Parts: sequence; structure tokens; C-alpha cells
Amino acid sequence: MRQVIPEPLTADAFAPFGDVIEASDRAEAKPINYGWTTRFNALTDVAVGDGQAIISIFRSKPLTPPILKIFERHPLGSQAFMPLQGRPFLVAVAPPGGFHPAKVRVFRAEANQGVNYAKGTWHHFLLALEAESDFLVVDRDGGPGENLDEVELPEADWIAVRA
Amino acid sequence: MRQVIPEPLTADAFAPFGDVIEASDRAEAKPINYGWTTRFNALTDVAVGDGQAIISIFRSKPLTPPILKIFERHPLGSQAFMPLQGRPFLVAVAPPGGFHPAKVRVFRAEANQGVNYAKGTWHHFLLALEAESDFLVVDRDGGPGENLDEVELPEADWIAVRA
Repeated sequence: MRQVIPEPLTADAFAPFGDVIEASDRAEAKPINYGWTTRFNALTDVAVGDGQAIISIFRSKPLTPPILKIFERHPLGSQAFMPLQGRPFLVAVAPPGGFHPAKVRVFRAEANQGVNYAKGTWHHFLLALEAESDFLVVDRDGGPGENLDEVELPEADWIAVRA
Repeated sequence: MRQVIPEPLTADAFAPFGDVIEASDRAEAKPINYGWTTRFNALTDVAVGDGQAIISIFRSKPLTPPILKIFERHPLGSQAFMPLQGRPFLVAVAPPGGFHPAKVRVFRAEANQGVNYAKGTWHHFLLALEAESDFLVVDRDGGPGENLDEVELPEADWIAVRA
């Protein structure tokens, strides 16, 4: 089984898959609210096409053992995840288009980082770390068309994530 | 000056102003991700009309002294706030339509609660508590029209918030 050690999550490394959501120096930061607030503006766009953007909370348990067997993608909308309880999580992705196990990359998102998967980016389902954790999720609901594809990997292609 | 003690934030009390974002028993909770996740689904809709939904981070300092002098509303889109650092915050609102200082209500949101202001709901700018705090914000960008109205209260109508 292929073993993968998570990479640090950076905007550049993640660019082929979507956006990193974090209050970083790269963001447009402007003072608002008469100086009481800094707005790190438009860190990512919500893409929903003919659907409706909704906000949900996902409560996820860490995957044990951490072996990746299934990937999914949403061809019609983006999907954003932001941790709410100050814990890191893992982000396993592969580029849009045909799914190739060799192209899977695994990132470690720190507690102050979220991600927004672009339409069509293959990703593993939410991978909490340390403890069951809540995440804010912004994604597409309703609208025409089927917004979920899934691939189940043959055992030879399973990926073990090393801490 | 009118003194207001914050009320607890509940979905029922907040219904005239928008939605509370929290993983509560009221939400539609469904198991997904092969049992690793519970999805508290569609806690609120993102309304942006002809605009684009964006995700930003607001970093806000507590307002000192806690005296409310200015309210704003966004007639063309909803605006959602979710705390990211496990700290409560205050939510000061008044119903859509003409602004009436006597109708202002102040809620205390706990660390696991966010809010989504409905289009047109009058609200004070973000009121962090305890320390400078980050919030995830989902609101409207671009599109035609002016999405901000503001009222400055005469001193006789200022509102002091008591902890």
C-alpha cells in the first residue's frame, strides 16, 4: 500500500485543487467597522451554478485506520470546509478529470486553515484529526443535475496516511 | 442612555432577523461519509440575488466602551458570521423596514453559534467579546445595486450593553 506523509497546506501547493481559507498576508486585508475589524476579503468564491448555496455543520470523527479507499467530486459546485474547534485536519485531493490514484496528494490543514474545493476536484471525505470535530461547510443544494461522483479504489490503490 | 442586557441566542428568538447556525437538535441531522460524519444540513441559505457569494474572515476587536451608535443593513444579500476561535460574541439587531431604536435587541451568541442576517435586517457591526477574534463570513460581492445602508443614532438613542 502506498504510504503518504501529509504536506503542509499552502495556497500555492493547493492552487490546482481550490483555495485555502485563512487570514494570511496574501489576502486583501482592509480595515472596516470604523477600525474595529480587519476584513480578509473574498478568500474564495462560492460556486453553485443553478443551485443554492447553503451553510451546514459537519461533525466528523477521525478515520481509523487512516486508509483512503474512496474519493468523490462535485462537478456542479464548490465545497468549503472550515474547522470550528481549533483542531487540524487532513485534506486528500486529486486533480479534476479522470481519477488517478498516483496523483492523490494529502495536506495537513492547521486549525486556522480551511479549504474550498473547486468544482470537480476529487477529494476524500472529511478527515478530522485528534478528536470528533465540527466544521462549517458551504456548498451547493438543489438545482438540476447530479452533483456527486464517487470512485472506490481497488485494494492495490489504497493509500495509508502516516501521521 | 438605554441599557440592554443581552438575551440568550435561540432560533425562535432570532427568527425575525435571520437564522442561528448551530448543530442543534432542531437541525436535520443525517449520517454521511459512511458513518464518519453527521451532517447538520442547510442550517441557513446564502442569499445573494444577482451577486456572488464569497467567503471572508473578519478579525474583530471587542467594542469598548460597549455603546451602540451605528446600525447597518444589506438589502441585497444575507450575511453570515461564525466564530472560529471558541469565543462568544454579541449580536445587535433590529427588524427590516424603518429603523426604530426601541426595537433593537441584543443577543449573546455562544462560542458554538453563528448567525445569518436575512436581507434587510438592521445590525450593529461585529461585536467580539473577550479578545480579538476571527469569524468566518459568507456574504454578497459584486452584482448591481448598493448593498449597504447605515444609520447613525442621535446620542439620545445610543444603547449601552451591559455584560
